[in-house]
Amino acid sequence: MKTRVIVLNGGSSSGKTGIARCLQAVLPDQWLLLGVDTLVDAMPASMQMSDEGIGFGPDGGVTVGSGFRELEAAWIEGVAAMARAGAGIVVDEVFLGGAESQRRWQQALGGVGVLWVGVRCEAAVAAGRETARGDRTPGMAASQADMVHRGVTYDLEVDTTGQESMECARIIAARVV
Amino acid sequence: MKTRVIVLNGGSSSGKTGIARCLQAVLPDQWLLLGVDTLVDAMPASMQMSDEGIGFGPDGGVTVGSGFRELEAAWIEGVAAMARAGAGIVVDEVFLGGAESQRRWQQALGGVGVLWVGVRCEAAVAAGRETARGDRTPGMAASQADMVHRGVTYDLEVDTTGQESMECARIIAARVV
Amino acid sequence: MKTRVIVLNGGSSSGKTGIARCLQAVLPDQWLLLGVDTLVDAMPASMQMSDEGIGFGPDGGVTVGSGFRELEAAWIEGVAAMARAGAGIVVDEVFLGGAESQRRWQQALGGVGVLWVGVRCEAAVAAGRETARGDRTPGMAASQADMVHRGVTYDLEVDTTGQESMECARIIAARVV
Amino acid sequence: MKTRVIVLNGGSSSGKTGIARCLQAVLPDQWLLLGVDTLVDAMPASMQMSDEGIGFGPDGGVTVGSGFRELEAAWIEGVAAMARAGAGIVVDEVFLGGAESQRRWQQALGGVGVLWVGVRCEAAVAAGRETARGDRTPGMAASQADMVHRGVTYDLEVDTTGQESMECARIIAARVV
Repeated sequence: MKTRVIVLNGGSSSGKTGIARCLQAVLPDQWLLLGVDTLVDAMPASMQMSDEGIGFGPDGGVTVGSGFRELEAAWIEGVAAMARAGAGIVVDEVFLGGAESQRRWQQALGGVGVLWVGVRCEAAVAAGRETARGDRTPGMAASQADMVHRGVTYDLEVDTTGQESMECARIIAARVV
Repeated sequence: MKTRVIVLNGGSSSGKTGIARCLQAVLPDQWLLLGVDTLVDAMPASMQMSDEGIGFGPDGGVTVGSGFRELEAAWIEGVAAMARAGAGIVVDEVFLGGAESQRRWQQALGGVGVLWVGVRCEAAVAAGRETARGDRTPGMAASQADMVHRGVTYDLEVDTTGQESMECARIIAARVV
Repeated sequence: MKTRVIVLNGGSSSGKTGIARCLQAVLPDQWLLLGVDTLVDAMPASMQMSDEGIGFGPDGGVTVGSGFRELEAAWIEGVAAMARAGAGIVVDEVFLGGAESQRRWQQALGGVGVLWVGVRCEAAVAAGRETARGDRTPGMAASQADMVHRGVTYDLEVDTTGQESMECARIIAARVV
Repeated sequence: MKTRVIVLNGGSSSGKTGIARCLQAVLPDQWLLLGVDTLVDAMPASMQMSDEGIGFGPDGGVTVGSGFRELEAAWIEGVAAMARAGAGIVVDEVFLGGAESQRRWQQALGGVGVLWVGVRCEAAVAAGRETARGDRTPGMAASQADMVHRGVTYDLEVDTTGQESMECARIIAARVV
């Protein structure tokens, strides 16, 4: 089955988005890059400061409410429909719920060729990159580094600790069919 | 039929996005804001500088190629699927092709309750706001002010020339069923 | 004395930055746009979340600590030096301390031709624009609308409630000598 | 002489800004981060598209005109004045003119303690990071990688090819007196 969706899952500052942009550059055909950041930007501003929406704890922990989950469910259906309509999609995700998050995408993507990719980075290195970016809530990188991979199954995993985004992208692109 | 999609169509710097954010604040329920800017951000960087993608002329004219149209078709299908899955969507659009652009959305949105809204602004005022924003290609506002409305049919029209975004949003929200 | 600095003071979402960009477009010669947003972006990320730096209250109130004041004092000296070195500068400011804030700039700008401009906007209108922008802490516009003008003296005042940024810019530019 | 200014010079996508933010996090006292990006943002929009201002060639080459140089001269004077007023400043620069660019800063910074730091990155690696960032003119990284260091003298050099921003920042911070 032709690969139509590449799901990149990894913690904050693990390097997913950089890999995704390199994938867009090296893959044949044109792929869209959509992810949890796109979804959050599309939500009402009020969702980002309420129990219904997204909460950022002082230690970098992230919680999402029922309002977020409802919009997210429709979003996932829509991204799956884009793939069925013929677009290639790189999904840049943070599975805060681990295996349960993956299950939500798996249900929506039935019948679509998906490549599941784990993006890892040592917690200390990701925390340094979080500081270097300067616009992220401190602590998110360390808090999410392992948590987002719990119980998730992958077709392949890459590690940005000692490997550039472009190298990771080439390894992933070689697995696209 | 319950309104699930509000399509705001207007030229660059006509004030669509401001109205869209106010709609998200005043409408009951949570609505997603998606638009042509979301789509362009999701495209490969290379699309923004090639004949296949988007071209910005020195006079503010915008052209899109066949690669753009293919990804856009899948995008529109996906946004329609999000609405069918139960999310309310504010679509922030620039119908460069006028009636032909509207037809593409109408086909995808069959069976979905849609409110079609024209967002107008006097060309000279929009051009001034383009300068005030400072990050847009000069000339786009004037070039698109009338063009994007050619042959398009609306449920209602608002004019931001002398009316604030919030006022326009309240007028539109009153028509949502 | 030739005008070298134009200080625009107004509350959040009063339209200062839009006027500043229009001023850059209509003034003869090239002017730099520098302001409190430039300074805040230049500060360490940690300053934005500590008692030493900037605090944003739940009601839109803003407080600044002693660490902020020290860097700001050096910043003001530097901006004054740029003007003395021959550059025209539009300063985009929010005088949280009213007259006391103005005094800090007056001391540094001794011997420099300055045009002091108050930028006003009705609190309700500014609050609507804050919602339309979507990226500001709700409540800042209303909380600052009057406060920032307390005890401040101006060469001229403009009001964006019913006047476009470009119109205000032309009024101000006519007073530059 | 106490270090008041740290000048980081390197090509586009060599990692200067990431190092600068890490420096702000690890240095004692609060330092401002100012650089050529701050200056360009402060310039009139028109400067970015004219012979007087900045030009970006199709191959990633960058040229600056006489209007740019005039504003830059005043800017440099102002940054030096901020350091003399007691602020620590990390200057994030791209010496397009090599030794001649350094000379401009040296003249303005007379009497100020400066640490000159070269930030290097292999051209191929920097080009990959440019792709990963997705918002830079392709080709700038490769075109500037060596050029910006020609004839420039440093107190120390760091190389981000195989070293994280945070590691480089710690090496630099150890040299601040």
